[in-house]
Amino acid sequence: MGGTTVKCGLFSTKGDLLEKWEIKTDISDNGVNILPDIAKSLENKLKEKGIAKEEIEGVGLGVPGPVDDNAVVAKAVNIHWGRKDLKQEMRDLIGLEAYASNDANVAALGEMWMGGAKGHENLILVTLGTGVGGGIIVKGKIIFGSHGAGGELGHTMAEPEEEELCNCGNKGCLEQVASATGIVRLAKKRLAKEHEKSKLDEGELSAKSIFDAYKEGDALAEEVVEKFAYYLGSALSRFSSVTDPEVIVIGGGMSKAGQPLLDVIEKYYKKYAFSSCKDTPIVMAKLGNDAGIYGAARLVL
Amino acid sequence: MGGTTVKCGLFSTKGDLLEKWEIKTDISDNGVNILPDIAKSLENKLKEKGIAKEEIEGVGLGVPGPVDDNAVVAKAVNIHWGRKDLKQEMRDLIGLEAYASNDANVAALGEMWMGGAKGHENLILVTLGTGVGGGIIVKGKIIFGSHGAGGELGHTMAEPEEEELCNCGNKGCLEQVASATGIVRLAKKRLAKEHEKSKLDEGELSAKSIFDAYKEGDALAEEVVEKFAYYLGSALSRFSSVTDPEVIVIGGGMSKAGQPLLDVIEKYYKKYAFSSCKDTPIVMAKLGNDAGIYGAARLVL
Repeated sequence: MGGTTVKCGLFSTKGDLLEKWEIKTDISDNGVNILPDIAKSLENKLKEKGIAKEEIEGVGLGVPGPVDDNAVVAKAVNIHWGRKDLKQEMRDLIGLEAYASNDANVAALGEMWMGGAKGHENLILVTLGTGVGGGIIVKGKIIFGSHGAGGELGHTMAEPEEEELCNCGNKGCLEQVASATGIVRLAKKRLAKEHEKSKLDEGELSAKSIFDAYKEGDALAEEVVEKFAYYLGSALSRFSSVTDPEVIVIGGGMSKAGQPLLDVIEKYYKKYAFSSCKDTPIVMAKLGNDAGIYGAARLVL
Repeated sequence: MGGTTVKCGLFSTKGDLLEKWEIKTDISDNGVNILPDIAKSLENKLKEKGIAKEEIEGVGLGVPGPVDDNAVVAKAVNIHWGRKDLKQEMRDLIGLEAYASNDANVAALGEMWMGGAKGHENLILVTLGTGVGGGIIVKGKIIFGSHGAGGELGHTMAEPEEEELCNCGNKGCLEQVASATGIVRLAKKRLAKEHEKSKLDEGELSAKSIFDAYKEGDALAEEVVEKFAYYLGSALSRFSSVTDPEVIVIGGGMSKAGQPLLDVIEKYYKKYAFSSCKDTPIVMAKLGNDAGIYGAARLVL
């Protein structure tokens, strides 16, 4: 579920994606229609396919906010939700068993099941988009955490000197310096200071334009990307010392920057990681926008 | 097991410590005698008590080094071990099932079972001694990690400007600034610069003398303790965003500094922690040197 659309998928228990579709997210009235809309869409799909409810194992949900391991949401700002018991509500709405977790957590589970971390059961997923999301899997299971905040990697402190507030209310969060928005902030700050002529002086700044200039050898873009990679690589090295994953997976819109992105993150990761973890591979996510629906399905199974 | 002694305990399956004793650690010949010495001591204890081997559930071991969840040690520098399969060796030596983990991990398990984190099953233990040790428990189980490096919190990067090497080969590790040795380093660095008269100018510097001066309101000691607490509190806030524990437990020799230590760590923890985790309690370990034997026993059960 996102602030604009809810992505839906119908899966076989073997993990085949039989069909996918989207519905609009109706965030009016504190998002009171979202679950009923999902339930209706699922009922229609089952009717259309001639599938009986008894054949369905359950419904998996990925929520943009902290969720505990009883599928209770504490708060999901983007879809205007307060506390919500998803198991209870889905049972009432559609009579099926529901399972839920944070969106980055289910994406991590999806990447483990059918994506970049296939064949592993210990991983860290970091998604680099407007924000920085995180999902942690240990022995095949999501780390939910005792307040549903397991894997909230985007809000770990990365820059003690930061003066602007993060959306979360703290200052210096990883998200402020290592998301698509964050790298643009770093570039703007650098451009405001004295500098040699750079490709970044022209056109609109974006994570893409910065990485494009970086790949073309622009010196200022290089400085900005190295700084971004220092923040992200050192943060990943710290997370790695906590759960010691087999693989670290990079997802989200910024992952389109490809191998040069992985290379520069790895440079700083290796510098700071504990000896036993220095060779942990950093790989790309593979499922793109489908990671969430795969993971939500896996959550049920 | 430590570099000087092996602490041993005989436990009932309910968790009663029936007897404890110590034997010397023989680190000669790459520590080849350590396990046979332990086996012999256990055999003698059983004989003395008139307990048959069939009544014993197993042997739990805490090792000063990374251990995977098959009880295979990668390396344990302090006791001169290379790779060692503890399950196999103990089976050959004494015919009992053995279980093992890193010493800080078993201490965390002990504190969960019978100590400062009793009643919880999600916790982070940090021990502040000569080094900084870490143990992470999620849903009652140790996070071993895929290279036995789960919870290696002492070697996460805390100070990017650090110039001296840590024992681990990296620079800027938490252990270099937030252990008993680390806070003495911070104090020495500060004393080398211009400063007002301080209690720390006289006598030998130690974590104890620094905290004593801090409690007496010495301005320089305060500056040093605040810096130490910034490093430790911000590090704990990051670990907290990974596994989102119910409680954070502080152990090791430095914990003797008591409530003022907890208060100053909490100040920085609260500043940087993600909103859902800001109220996670930071408490003292309770089992002292016995945490390891309790946790090793729990590992078996």
